[in-house]
Amino acid sequence: MGLQGWTIGVDFGGTNIKVGAVTARGVVARHVVLAAREHATPEAFALGLEGAIRRLAETLGFSAGRIRGVGVGAPGVIDGERGVIHRLVNVPGGWRGVALKRLLERRLRRRCAVDNDVNVVALGEWRAGAGRGTRHSVYLTLGTGVGGGVVANGALVRGVSGSAGEIGHTVIRPDGPRCACGARGCLEALIGTPAIVRRARAAIRGGSRILARLAAREGAVTPVVVSRAAAAGDRAARRIWDEAGFHLGLSLSNLINLLNPERIVVGGGVARAWPWFAPRMRLTIRRTAFRVPARACRVVRSALGDEAGIIGGAILVWEQTSKQKGKGSDPSRTVGLTNGV
Amino acid sequence: MGLQGWTIGVDFGGTNIKVGAVTARGVVARHVVLAAREHATPEAFALGLEGAIRRLAETLGFSAGRIRGVGVGAPGVIDGERGVIHRLVNVPGGWRGVALKRLLERRLRRRCAVDNDVNVVALGEWRAGAGRGTRHSVYLTLGTGVGGGVVANGALVRGVSGSAGEIGHTVIRPDGPRCACGARGCLEALIGTPAIVRRARAAIRGGSRILARLAAREGAVTPVVVSRAAAAGDRAARRIWDEAGFHLGLSLSNLINLLNPERIVVGGGVARAWPWFAPRMRLTIRRTAFRVPARACRVVRSALGDEAGIIGGAILVWEQTSKQKGKGSDPSRTVGLTNGV
Repeated sequence: MGLQGWTIGVDFGGTNIKVGAVTARGVVARHVVLAAREHATPEAFALGLEGAIRRLAETLGFSAGRIRGVGVGAPGVIDGERGVIHRLVNVPGGWRGVALKRLLERRLRRRCAVDNDVNVVALGEWRAGAGRGTRHSVYLTLGTGVGGGVVANGALVRGVSGSAGEIGHTVIRPDGPRCACGARGCLEALIGTPAIVRRARAAIRGGSRILARLAAREGAVTPVVVSRAAAAGDRAARRIWDEAGFHLGLSLSNLINLLNPERIVVGGGVARAWPWFAPRMRLTIRRTAFRVPARACRVVRSALGDEAGIIGGAILVWEQTSKQKGKGSDPSRTVGLTNGV
Repeated sequence: MGLQGWTIGVDFGGTNIKVGAVTARGVVARHVVLAAREHATPEAFALGLEGAIRRLAETLGFSAGRIRGVGVGAPGVIDGERGVIHRLVNVPGGWRGVALKRLLERRLRRRCAVDNDVNVVALGEWRAGAGRGTRHSVYLTLGTGVGGGVVANGALVRGVSGSAGEIGHTVIRPDGPRCACGARGCLEALIGTPAIVRRARAAIRGGSRILARLAAREGAVTPVVVSRAAAAGDRAARRIWDEAGFHLGLSLSNLINLLNPERIVVGGGVARAWPWFAPRMRLTIRRTAFRVPARACRVVRSALGDEAGIIGGAILVWEQTSKQKGKGSDPSRTVGLTNGV
């Protein structure tokens, strides 16, 4: 395995594009940030990426020839096997039908890989983070969107059209609130940031004074404000997290009974409220899931934090390179990652 | 691949144990039936199996030396990788902690394999039935119990402790009826045979005359009676299947969004009511699942019928044999199955 040299991981967000140089052991040595707004076309993005890589190589003192590949995670509908962006969402430009892998490989003359950002983070957490060493695990990110990735038999499950992992859009309450996707009672509609904020606003209208004061001080109602209110003893805030824990617990029980994973890794901004929702989440799993698979599964917080997208991008290239070299479907055996945390 | 010769598939049920001789092309040439009650210990089972195999060999005119292996599917908690029965359910004897694979291999001097019956049928439908040729698919059986199997990346997903596939015990209505497993609103509690029967009884009490007449004629309230009543225009019966179709459609939407399978295969006794629940099931999928994965997924009825357990048993042995010979994880490439229908 060509694990010598560096790999570039790219975390393509709505505001910032983070370009990081990842060592052979899965550590981000340095990263630079590009403004998404200034790189809103595939050509501008490729050009900006080229410059960012040059800067990283200069700063870290390696030659571009030692770069093994470039892996990109971006939000949207993406065919990760072919590296084709069907549609980007929540980023300037709103790309459609871009064969980005091919474009980048021509421009950068390096092996490139492109996949959905949640798949990439799931890959990062599985191979170098809190899911390390598992053959069956699930990654879940809680934020404005709720998404995830499934690892089964030692491989990420992308599905037949590359869209697997939409845990946020599994229905657990058919008469629940309308989801952004159009369905009713999806997990995302129950515990995504907008759902938490909506409940907090209702609580403020209902007379929740601590929550009202903290929201006024912050100038906004956010999940962080709801957590602070819970810490300060606000009953409505605690109830909001308790309900979120219940709904999350139901979804995790479904995953446990369906896939019998060894670990479930929970990340994303809303996961910062872990101390407030985890007790009810665990209680619900104990009450709902079968005992044998529930005992076999540890539910833990994600480990890679803000660097997950960059590290995952690097791993995406390693994975696709090792596949092409015919090294089998379990690349975790062939790369010597440090924990990266 | 040693695809010459015969393989024995064993479908271990609560009343009958079916022992079938399966050709190299996945066809059941003949099967014999043993009474479960008379083979309620592992030793009696092994002895009965030995005799049944001898009878099959004599009748079909092949020598026992040409038997490639013996694969058993049984209801209960089973470690399919090691062939250990943790606990059998709904069969006489109630075995616990039996290393059946080892016991049978010693007794029969053949490669043997043992797994959960639903896994075995899922394997059969995937490799030789309605799921043939897929790398991502789901099998679902509807009956007194509702269970299934998940195929991802070209392999059956057993999970870390061998209990994956419990689709019937995913919650889709947390305030729904209590399930046999203890949770509330599992798919099984909503569309399993007892749920259909309970609703039909309530409809009869509520004055549903066609349903009452057909149930009286049959001497019992069964899903078949509810289907006949629906065919005869009974409104309550149609509503029962419509609701079942809605709940099944929600669960299938969850599977589609989570796993992005190419096919979902539906079998089991309750699936005979397909004409009555399928329209609402399909409508619910269109309304609930994401468009791209929903369009990529065909939902079809199972193909193997009563022989699924025997054929699946044979395939279980082929799969484990090809693994041990290091032929990789996708045995569908290496065996030349006919459709077997």
